[in-house]
Amino acid sequence: MNVNKKHYRTIWVKEGNEKIIQIIDQRSLPYKFIIEDLKSVDDFVRAIKEMHVRGAGLIGAAAGFGMYLAALNNDDLNKAGEKLKATRPTAVNLAWAVDRQLKAIENAEDKVKITLETAKNIADEDADFCKKIGEHGAKIIEKISKKKNNGLVNILTHCNAGWLAFVDYGSATAPIYAAHGKGIKVHVWVDETRPRNQGARLTAWELLQQGVPHTIISDNAGGHLMQHGLVDICIVGTDRTTYTGDVANKIGTYLKALAAKDNNVPFYVALPSSSFDWKIKNGIKKIPIEQRGDEEVKYAQGLVNSQIKKVLLAPKDSPAANFAFDVTPRRLISGLITERGVCKANEESILNLYPEHKYG
Amino acid sequence: MNVNKKHYRTIWVKEGNEKIIQIIDQRSLPYKFIIEDLKSVDDFVRAIKEMHVRGAGLIGAAAGFGMYLAALNNDDLNKAGEKLKATRPTAVNLAWAVDRQLKAIENAEDKVKITLETAKNIADEDADFCKKIGEHGAKIIEKISKKKNNGLVNILTHCNAGWLAFVDYGSATAPIYAAHGKGIKVHVWVDETRPRNQGARLTAWELLQQGVPHTIISDNAGGHLMQHGLVDICIVGTDRTTYTGDVANKIGTYLKALAAKDNNVPFYVALPSSSFDWKIKNGIKKIPIEQRGDEEVKYAQGLVNSQIKKVLLAPKDSPAANFAFDVTPRRLISGLITERGVCKANEESILNLYPEHKYG
Repeated sequence: MNVNKKHYRTIWVKEGNEKIIQIIDQRSLPYKFIIEDLKSVDDFVRAIKEMHVRGAGLIGAAAGFGMYLAALNNDDLNKAGEKLKATRPTAVNLAWAVDRQLKAIENAEDKVKITLETAKNIADEDADFCKKIGEHGAKIIEKISKKKNNGLVNILTHCNAGWLAFVDYGSATAPIYAAHGKGIKVHVWVDETRPRNQGARLTAWELLQQGVPHTIISDNAGGHLMQHGLVDICIVGTDRTTYTGDVANKIGTYLKALAAKDNNVPFYVALPSSSFDWKIKNGIKKIPIEQRGDEEVKYAQGLVNSQIKKVLLAPKDSPAANFAFDVTPRRLISGLITERGVCKANEESILNLYPEHKYG
Repeated sequence: MNVNKKHYRTIWVKEGNEKIIQIIDQRSLPYKFIIEDLKSVDDFVRAIKEMHVRGAGLIGAAAGFGMYLAALNNDDLNKAGEKLKATRPTAVNLAWAVDRQLKAIENAEDKVKITLETAKNIADEDADFCKKIGEHGAKIIEKISKKKNNGLVNILTHCNAGWLAFVDYGSATAPIYAAHGKGIKVHVWVDETRPRNQGARLTAWELLQQGVPHTIISDNAGGHLMQHGLVDICIVGTDRTTYTGDVANKIGTYLKALAAKDNNVPFYVALPSSSFDWKIKNGIKKIPIEQRGDEEVKYAQGLVNSQIKKVLLAPKDSPAANFAFDVTPRRLISGLITERGVCKANEESILNLYPEHKYG
């Protein structure tokens, strides 16, 4: 998508130097647009762990390029894969990308060439899948707009499932960008998404850059908005969705899904198939939930006097807990928007769309 | 309650000078403990509007003392009352206290004496009612503890309905303090409560000062905790509760009530009778919801380098909206804890406890 009217992806091979992968260091957004060079798998491990890059699709693509740099530097690829997988426990794309690389190099002679090709394929596919998610999802938005006599469609989203979370387009934002591109009137309620504020920092910045009307709200506000008819549809992303339709996504998603159900607001989850977990049946019981440092909750990070600083929000001696994700049970979800089309959040519908996993 | 082991109320007549009312300037908590002198009704209007004082009971008591200072300074008391009522539209205690003062001075000769007496009575009554709420509510907590073989009771609360929101004890916190005082094992999950962080700043500070175990969480986390059996009971306060049982409270309360219902966690609202609105039947349609400045959402305020500063969380050019309250419908509420005892959140139960309002 566009940054200051120039097209970017979130990850790419440096022009003129195939030994360097470039990313946008998302920690500095929306204040500064910084491009970072990564030269080793350890650079990638750090970048994923410290969230220079984050988001389901992007950390999958990052893991792909991380494996390529490991091959390039003659590292033990199994060990490199383990290190990458361990960075973020909830996201399924990580393991998926690593395993795809490991499979690609089985019996391969030129591992560097193969891993680079595979990493590029993973990235291209991610962008392509997100674009298709946009096409399928835009139809849902268009339908709502038509029902309102071509009126404004208010969309609520949580966290950043935007192009910054993928290679391009995004998952939850793809239908929004596609609808906006078709001239459908949209307005996005952006949950700020504490504690790391990916909504206020990243989604708002993305939407601003693409010229999509939006309003930032505190995470507490969505229920009130839905109660008062101010939300027509919720669209969120996911870090892992079971083949039965349970959705792990940024902490707080479950609360919005409850409010949507209580107010008959359609609640959609957008995802490329790389975010499906084909093994886990019960999401609430089985998806591991990452716990992060308590300082993210006790502090807020932002800009003051042109510098990025952390301010202490709470008594220094009070403890805090930081669960990064929650699981929204399938019964609260109106549908899944995938690259192959829209399906219900249940085993039958998902496997009908992905029959190759029926006996997996 | 205690601050550094010395007992304080949140509002009092200055020792040795009846012309000055003292308050704790809550904007500086938890970093600094500042006592502020108020000398006129306009001082009170500013203190309420800019939230030096806040919380249902305390702004009622503040309105009472504001009316006293208006009488002392020979102001037009009707106009003073109007100014006070206009400061915060959602809280019902404000209007209740102003009207009580206006009624008290009807036909009174010494308006200064009467308004001072009435203001003191409002404050004393608030403290007394909160103490009783504590006694009634502690029994509910005790019962849960007994069911768990005298085990730990995990309580979730939202915003600050603590002693800082009242004159003493608090509403939602009173049962917690009473249970803790009786030796029942309690632990409190403190919602940080964006955008003003009254949970992280004030509730955590209160609990720390009284030695009550607690953990601060982001507003997004409560649903996940309830899904995993980590919350035994929710207790929140209210800024206005209809006589039919609908509860207006800090934005986000509705989301927690939905999660409590979805997970069979009891959800209680604690309130002195001054927080009832005896006229409004449908809370969602009729309770006015205060909208505050968008800078509260776009910035977070906290301590950096020993100074209280605001950091920008979002792109400067993105708009934000700031709804301060939401309404939780009665169907989601397990019970109301009042100074007269516990009742169901419906018209019949409430009016049985307050029969004097039956034909009001």
